[in-house]
Amino acid sequence: MFTTTILVRFGDLDAAGIAYYPNLVNFLHEAFEDFFVGHLGRPFPEVYAEGLGFPTVKLEMEFLSPVHYGDQVDIRVTVERVGRSSLHMRYQGSVKGRWVFNARTVAVIVDMKTFRPTPLPSWLRERFQAALPPAPPTE
Amino acid sequence: MFTTTILVRFGDLDAAGIAYYPNLVNFLHEAFEDFFVGHLGRPFPEVYAEGLGFPTVKLEMEFLSPVHYGDQVDIRVTVERVGRSSLHMRYQGSVKGRWVFNARTVAVIVDMKTFRPTPLPSWLRERFQAALPPAPPTE
Amino acid sequence: MFTTTILVRFGDLDAAGIAYYPNLVNFLHEAFEDFFVGHLGRPFPEVYAEGLGFPTVKLEMEFLSPVHYGDQVDIRVTVERVGRSSLHMRYQGSVKGRWVFNARTVAVIVDMKTFRPTPLPSWLRERFQAALPPAPPTE
Amino acid sequence: MFTTTILVRFGDLDAAGIAYYPNLVNFLHEAFEDFFVGHLGRPFPEVYAEGLGFPTVKLEMEFLSPVHYGDQVDIRVTVERVGRSSLHMRYQGSVKGRWVFNARTVAVIVDMKTFRPTPLPSWLRERFQAALPPAPPTE
Repeated sequence: MFTTTILVRFGDLDAAGIAYYPNLVNFLHEAFEDFFVGHLGRPFPEVYAEGLGFPTVKLEMEFLSPVHYGDQVDIRVTVERVGRSSLHMRYQGSVKGRWVFNARTVAVIVDMKTFRPTPLPSWLRERFQAALPPAPPTE
Repeated sequence: MFTTTILVRFGDLDAAGIAYYPNLVNFLHEAFEDFFVGHLGRPFPEVYAEGLGFPTVKLEMEFLSPVHYGDQVDIRVTVERVGRSSLHMRYQGSVKGRWVFNARTVAVIVDMKTFRPTPLPSWLRERFQAALPPAPPTE
Repeated sequence: MFTTTILVRFGDLDAAGIAYYPNLVNFLHEAFEDFFVGHLGRPFPEVYAEGLGFPTVKLEMEFLSPVHYGDQVDIRVTVERVGRSSLHMRYQGSVKGRWVFNARTVAVIVDMKTFRPTPLPSWLRERFQAALPPAPPTE
Repeated sequence: MFTTTILVRFGDLDAAGIAYYPNLVNFLHEAFEDFFVGHLGRPFPEVYAEGLGFPTVKLEMEFLSPVHYGDQVDIRVTVERVGRSSLHMRYQGSVKGRWVFNARTVAVIVDMKTFRPTPLPSWLRERFQAALPPAPPTE
């Protein structure tokens, strides 16, 4: 299990003094980047520079509690499914143990030269699969 | 039915040259603002200044096709349900007749002084209800 | 003289309920884009797609008065100097006749394939020069 | 002398794959926040919550070299002048020893209840003054 922490900055706030929700969506991408370097062992900018993109095609997000200025948001990143050319990810955000958001995304792997879906390279597939939570025990 | 059009700016783009998806989430809020002044007949900033907030508590969004620099995104805004202190909205984005995103949000109406849910004021409830699509015919 | 108008959106605000100043810097770029289509007669996205970039290398900006939610910011765009591979621009923002910012930028024209400075193409140079304010009368 | 480091995220990039300059302006505010907690010894969000604001009234910034995805930008923060109700700050950004930007800002200290200028509280004035670089030796 991988968790990263993102600090809420002044520029993330809205007029109500809480994080504006599109900025929390941006936090998901930041957590995805941190997951690459921190859990898969490769910086995302390197993988991106090699021509792989991961555009998000689906997003579901619940905002459970307001996120305030200066909060440290702990984001737990979980791989839920590794498809041939897709990744199902989950992001659970909390501040000091209180859940603040819960999100699921589906990203498609694309070849940045053609912007067409492409299978995950095997080295990356292996790392994502190794990051899957253990299957529940069967009898 | 209400449709507003938002121009994709340079600042909305990502390194792939397409709209970065958190910025498309921001488009939903802009469409909500345009819906107020264009369909409900009150500018959102006025309503907000009077102490009503509409934080988003749930978001579902599909990104169907890339959105490019200079695109005019037509966003059809539909009220799906008017609750006591909540609004279910739908946003369907298209560019020149091609669907680019489909989103649903749930917003809660809050009193900005307390940040607690509050019933929709009756004048606003009436306008949102008048904006509901007609019920399908029954036999 | 060219003026464009930009509406202040919820996403532009900071926790003080006024436009966050980096977002007003973004307004300068939006005004530059509007100047292309509205005054030079070519949409900026088209010019950009043809491989010309205009990165800003210098910015000076005074924030004269707070910009509020729902404000329509009128931005007067002036060409101050047309260099071989550079443009000196001025942006004067006002709301209902009250000045809110005053900015100068220097942009360099680059070939996007090499990201190296390149002379302004002659068709574009002519249009920028035609946009220069008239010289003051001499005796 | 105080230096903080900010990572360039995917959301900071423009279509050219480099940091969009309004986002680098946002980096200045992030560096100002880090300066509070790291050098003055109080988190900025706390000071802000107590009712002090620091709106920027003037900005000068040179963009010396492109900033790329994944860059760690080291920002040296210097206090240049401490006025009664104003602060002159300097921000020098570098990546691996190469200068990428150089900025100066003037912020005004305001009482957030009235949004009017207010003198720096003495505790904060002392800390800012202690952060001034030493005067050059005189004979």
